[in-house]
Formats: sequence, C-alpha cells, structure tokens
Amino acid sequence: MSARSHVCTPPSTALLTDRYELTMVQAALADGTASRRCVFEVFTRRLPAGRRYGVVAGTGRVLEALPTFRFADAELEYLRENSIVNDQTLDFLANYRFTGEIYGYAEGEVFFPGSPLLTVESSFAEGVLLETLVLSILNYDSAVASAASRMTGAAGSRPCLEMGGRRAHEHAAVAAARSAVVAGFAGTSNLEAGRRYGLSTIGTAAHAFTLLHDDEPSAFASQADSFGEHTTLLVDTYDITEGVRRAIAAAGTGLDAVRLDSGDLGQVAREVRDQLDDLGATGTKIVVSSDLDEHAIAALAAAPVDSYGVGTSVVTGSGAPTCGMVYKLVMRENSAGVMEPVQKASASKASVGGRKSAARRVDASGRASEEVVMSGAQASWQPAEPDLRPLHLPLVLDGVVQPGFTGADGVTRAAERHAASRAELSPYARRLSAGDPAIPTTHVSA
Amino acid sequence: MSARSHVCTPPSTALLTDRYELTMVQAALADGTASRRCVFEVFTRRLPAGRRYGVVAGTGRVLEALPTFRFADAELEYLRENSIVNDQTLDFLANYRFTGEIYGYAEGEVFFPGSPLLTVESSFAEGVLLETLVLSILNYDSAVASAASRMTGAAGSRPCLEMGGRRAHEHAAVAAARSAVVAGFAGTSNLEAGRRYGLSTIGTAAHAFTLLHDDEPSAFASQADSFGEHTTLLVDTYDITEGVRRAIAAAGTGLDAVRLDSGDLGQVAREVRDQLDDLGATGTKIVVSSDLDEHAIAALAAAPVDSYGVGTSVVTGSGAPTCGMVYKLVMRENSAGVMEPVQKASASKASVGGRKSAARRVDASGRASEEVVMSGAQASWQPAEPDLRPLHLPLVLDGVVQPGFTGADGVTRAAERHAASRAELSPYARRLSAGDPAIPTTHVSA
Repeated sequence: MSARSHVCTPPSTALLTDRYELTMVQAALADGTASRRCVFEVFTRRLPAGRRYGVVAGTGRVLEALPTFRFADAELEYLRENSIVNDQTLDFLANYRFTGEIYGYAEGEVFFPGSPLLTVESSFAEGVLLETLVLSILNYDSAVASAASRMTGAAGSRPCLEMGGRRAHEHAAVAAARSAVVAGFAGTSNLEAGRRYGLSTIGTAAHAFTLLHDDEPSAFASQADSFGEHTTLLVDTYDITEGVRRAIAAAGTGLDAVRLDSGDLGQVAREVRDQLDDLGATGTKIVVSSDLDEHAIAALAAAPVDSYGVGTSVVTGSGAPTCGMVYKLVMRENSAGVMEPVQKASASKASVGGRKSAARRVDASGRASEEVVMSGAQASWQPAEPDLRPLHLPLVLDGVVQPGFTGADGVTRAAERHAASRAELSPYARRLSAGDPAIPTTHVSA
Repeated sequence: MSARSHVCTPPSTALLTDRYELTMVQAALADGTASRRCVFEVFTRRLPAGRRYGVVAGTGRVLEALPTFRFADAELEYLRENSIVNDQTLDFLANYRFTGEIYGYAEGEVFFPGSPLLTVESSFAEGVLLETLVLSILNYDSAVASAASRMTGAAGSRPCLEMGGRRAHEHAAVAAARSAVVAGFAGTSNLEAGRRYGLSTIGTAAHAFTLLHDDEPSAFASQADSFGEHTTLLVDTYDITEGVRRAIAAAGTGLDAVRLDSGDLGQVAREVRDQLDDLGATGTKIVVSSDLDEHAIAALAAAPVDSYGVGTSVVTGSGAPTCGMVYKLVMRENSAGVMEPVQKASASKASVGGRKSAARRVDASGRASEEVVMSGAQASWQPAEPDLRPLHLPLVLDGVVQPGFTGADGVTRAAERHAASRAELSPYARRLSAGDPAIPTTHVSA
C-alpha cells in the first residue's frame, strides 16, 4: 500500500525573495510612489570571461512561479510576527497579484552583454517584489544552459546526457536538467525533471551494483536478466578488457552500450571499440562519463565515443555557476505623471536608462551579425528593417501568462529556439577558446 | 483578503534522484541481493585546490528530507507509465521507508580528504535509493559553508550578511542562507530561510528605491519616515559625499548605517567614516557590499567597515560551487552472509573499503593535530585514547531521525559546532592563500 497523495495548493513562492523588496514597498506605499508606473529590465553587463554568447533559460519557470507568487496566511503571519513590514504593507501583500506586462527573449535564445532579456512593466510595488525570484531563476538556469550549449556544440551529433544532479542542490538539479535539455542535451538521469517537464530519462547501474555482487559476471548477469540487451553495462569496476568480455558474454552482441567512467577515456574507448568489434558487438555503443566538460568532449571528437554523460560541469555552469544578470529600474513615472528614464551614477555599474526592445540582424543566408538594442518611447518597438528579427515576445499581458512557454511544451519549444538561434551564429561562436562576444551589441535610440 | 493556506502532505523527495538508483534496485530485487546488508560512505577525495579544510553542512536537511522520501501514488504512477521499473520494484517502492542506521559528522564540523562524513547502514535497496538526494544536499550545502567559513574567518569579529539569493536557484538560495549561518554569518536577506530556519533577516533598500523618487532627498526622507533611524541608507546612487550628507540630514545622527555598494570600498569607507564623524554621526555604521569574497573581505580589514554584505561568492562556493563528495559502497554481505569490505579498482578513483569511524586528535591546549580514520569490524568504534575526540554521531537509528539536528535548533547547534571546531585549527588553517589541508588524515585499522 502506498502513502496517499493529497491535492493541495502549490506552495507560495512569495518568500523566495530578499527582505528589502518588502521594506521598499512599505516606504513607497507610505509616500505614494508605490503606484508609480515603472519599467524594470533584466540584463547582464558582461558574459563570463572568454564566452562568446549566453543562452536564456528559466523563462518558463519564471512564468510557472508567477501565479503562486501570493502572500497567503502563512506568509503574512511570518511577516507580521517578525515585524518585517507594517500593517499597511501586510494589507497590500495580502491582495498582491501581478497585473502588469512582461516582455522578453524567448527561452533558448542566445544573448549578449546588454541584451534586454526581460522587461517588466507595472507599478513599482508590483514589479519590485518579483526581482529576487526572477533573478534567481534566470541566473541559475541560464548559467547551466550557457555551459550546456558549449557542450552540445562540442559534441556535434553525439548525444549529451545530463547526470549531475548529485553535485547541485536537489531542486537546482531539476532545473539544471531542464536547462541542459533546452541547450540540446538528449536526456537526464533526474527523475523529477522527467516527471515535471516530460524529459527523457536515462540510467542503468553504478559501480555499487557490481560491488554488491560476489563478482562482476554475477552483476552483469543480473542486469541482463532484468533489462535484457537494452541496457548499459558499466565495465570499469575492475579490469576493463575483462569487463567488456564479460558484458558481451552476459548480454550478447546485441547489448545496447557499455559505459566507461574512469581513465584516459579516448585511449580506452579506442581499445574497447576494437574489442567490441572483434567480439561481433559492432552495434554496441560506448558511453563515456567522468568529469567531462566542453573541453573534454571536444578532445574526444576523434575517439569512437557514442554519447557523453556530463555531471558536475554542466550543473555548475562549467566555471560560471551564475550569470551576472541584474534587474534594474530603467524608467518610471515622475511626480507629474510623466514617464522618465532613470539610471544610477556609479561608474562601475552603469546601466542604460529607458525602456528598450531588441532585434537581431540576420542576413539573407541566415547569419546573425548584430544585436540591435533600441531605446525609445514606444511601449513595444517592432523593427521595420526586414533583416531585423524581433527578440521581444509578450510573456505576460495584464497579469496573464501567455500560452506556450510553460511545462513540457515550453521546454520543447525552447530547445527548438536554441538550436535555431545558435545556428545563426558563425562557427566562430562555437569555439571554446576565450574570445569576444560572437556579435556586437549596438544601442540605437528611436 | 488573502489566499487561503492548505495543510497538506509535504511533497515527496523520492524522485529527486537518478534513475539508475531505481534500476539497480530492480535487478537486485530480482536476483536477491537487494536485501544484502550494506555500508555506504560519504567522503571526498580532495578539497578544492588550495583549501585547508571543508565544512560539513546540510546534515539537518538530509534528516528533514528522509521522512518524506516515500513513493506515493503520484510518484508510482510516473514510474509505471514511463516503464522506469517493473511491477515487483513498484511494489517494493510503494512500501519503502528507510529502516537502517546513519552515523556521521555533526553539521558544522570541519573535514578533510577521506573523512567518513556520513555512514549509511541498511539493506542495499534501502541505502542505494538515498544516494542522489544525500549527495545533492551535502555537496551544495557544504560547498557554501566551506566558502562562508573562509569569509567569516577573514571578517573576524565583523558580521557577514548573506545577500546572494538572486545568484542561485531559488531553493538553493534558501539552503545557501542556512549554510552561511552554520559557518558564522550573522543573517541573511532571504525571507524563506528566515521563516524556515528561524534565521535573522536583514535588508532595507536598493538603488531602485532611490531612482523611483524624484530625487535622493525624497527617497531618504521616505525611508526615514517609514523606518526611523533604525535603517540603512544606500548612499551611492549618485554622489557619495552628497549622499552621506543627505542621509544624516534625513535620518539624523542616530542613523543605524549607510551602505556602500560600488567603487574602491576601502578608500570610500575611510572618506565616509570621516564625514560621518564630522557630522556627529559617530555611531552610524558602514555596511559594504559589491562582489565581496573572502579575499576582498580580508583586504578591507584595516578599513573602517562595520559589516560585510556577501552575495554571489558565498552562494556559489567562491570558486568551488560543489564539493566532490561521493557515496560509495564500502562493505556488504556476501552470498554466505558474511560482511566484506569492497572497493573498485579504478586507479584514479580509489576508495578505502570497509566500515569506518573517525576522531580528531586534539591536544590539552585544544589544538587539533590529526584526523584519525579507523577501519575495522566494529559497528561503531569509539576511540580509547583521551586526546581523540569522536566525530561520528548517531543521526538515524532503526530508521528514526534522532532529535536535535533538524529545524532552527539544528542550525543553531551546527553554528556552535562550527565555531568550536574551527577554533581547534591552527591559525594556518585560516590563511586564504593556497595550501595543504590543515591537518593530515591518518588511516588505521582496528
């Protein structure tokens, strides 16, 4: 008998936020500025050192989190008991829901420094409350997708499989699997990601399974008994040559694959490929894992490897575990009711004020050459030039999440968008050596 | 009117796992090895390059996640519909609950390469299913605590405040705040972490609040109206000298603090301190933030700074966003019912077989000199020598989580343990330059 599942309200996302978002709302409610119309923009000032492009991911998760960004009794009680905000603010929060507009880059789209990735238009109070949650999701998910895209680029037509959940927070692991698939990974070992987003899941056995048994032949026989030839046998617990021989003896020459998880993978893969072919297992594939990153994948391009299992490096962004995305107020209504661009003075953290939109210049052959960021008074600028592909989509209108971006469909569409968007970049963009952004960003004013 | 809260079963943690844990259970159930008694051990082969110690964190979260590691109808349905495992396995999973023993290092304890951080003793099936979740939690939380401890060490008696949630997955942010506090941080900006673990929360205003207003004096006046002098005014949106003058004009010389978030923080802090003193605001503190890590904190030791707001670097482990902890089968019952140590052969991933326990050698003056890891047949070895402080505590007995490790109490105790444990290390251990582990690890056999 199984434990029973209860249908219940999804947990609130409203406290996944920094305290100062709420204290700012308190002061702004008291002085009347909370209702000023505002435009907030998510962008990054730079890519991680040497990277040529970034990949937007997490947009679907932001939109999934928005409807549950509500302050229910439990949240209000915590805020009241701990005197985080006053009663006027608690009343406002009790009735909070986002009623504004969000425009942004499609999930999976590539981006560059200064790309206006998400634009939130609402009252100050409605928009500022979303800052922390929006940044948490976009910064982590995009860091993973940006690394994952370098890996799938290096892997070419060979599938990459995400197996890194154990090296990330248990819920970040689910998001990482999702982001990896957005950036072209073929599947994940993470079951919750499989359930939640309809992703393909993979996985057969660890070294513990071999060690559990009295000897390797017993372990392989057990696995073959249970899964037939449609399984992957891990052959490097003891001697690899013996392991390969035993694998084919146990599962037959129709065995799906063997996995190598240690050693000089290129050299070992060559030896194992020869051995498998000699044994008649010409269709048995070789999966490699063991601290792979995009550089290791690239180095294995000439080796007879069929797929890559990637762990730590993809879930930690391969050296760049977060994006530097910020959520900045770029425009607001003044005391006379007129919208004005705003920006702070700090030299090292300069931002460009005003509402923006963006388009990518793509020539007739499909090659991208420029990120065009346009500032202007228009609410949603659409480029007139035919070679400019608009990048801003309406994601939320009047507080209503637009269809097509969330759930499993959202992931599928984001993966398609990523493949198409990356294909517009020159081959230079896929080089793993340090370089400048693949295309320049140009700011123009309407 | 607020949205209503529903009491409901906490969500299952059972699918926050890799598929292969379940497929191994399927094959082991079929061949009878699933019930073999096993010992799994969590350890790390090395510290991040140059680090002198690590900090165990997440133990309390592992214990909080254990009771909800159950396969309810929703989880079983997903596994069945996607043919992840067969009916025999589904029946086993439906009745799964962990009934074994878990021993381990207290949360907050420092650790070294080879330290047996957690020992799980149970049947193979019961223990292997926990692998991914246990590692996800310990690897992330310990990465954050290990970085955070370097920061609090560098900060000395000045408080460190965690503000990095926006640079981590939204739920990882909550765990990061918790881990930072385990390692000595005084508080966090994250409200959910405050609610869940009883942590102190901090936060007043961002640049957006100043920009929202027609001018800086209006913004400061509003904040002072709402929070009185017990607030922190952010003074670097425009000109800092003018900002400081306006801050004191708005809130008076009793103002709690000003925050600096850009520029050469050491130089600016000196100028601001002089200006505050000249204005008579001798008790107004200076909080600095802006991409601080342990090195930046150390560099500010001589500057008149009162507390440090730390963001990105703490939630991403300051260059080491995960620990390399693994969960290895080190001992199991053989077909004759006898417990045997096991280990795989791969040279690059060698592990030491057998059940282990550990103690730290601490001399009469309280200085630690050695990590003693003992392998032997005893279930739970306790050192006889008086200068050996035992490190293994019973965390779960007969499947029952022992009291004192979870919730807010668990965090408080872990923070105390960390302070005491770090105090046993020589001053060398707090040096930030690259070095070897602070004490050697010695393996002895009973």
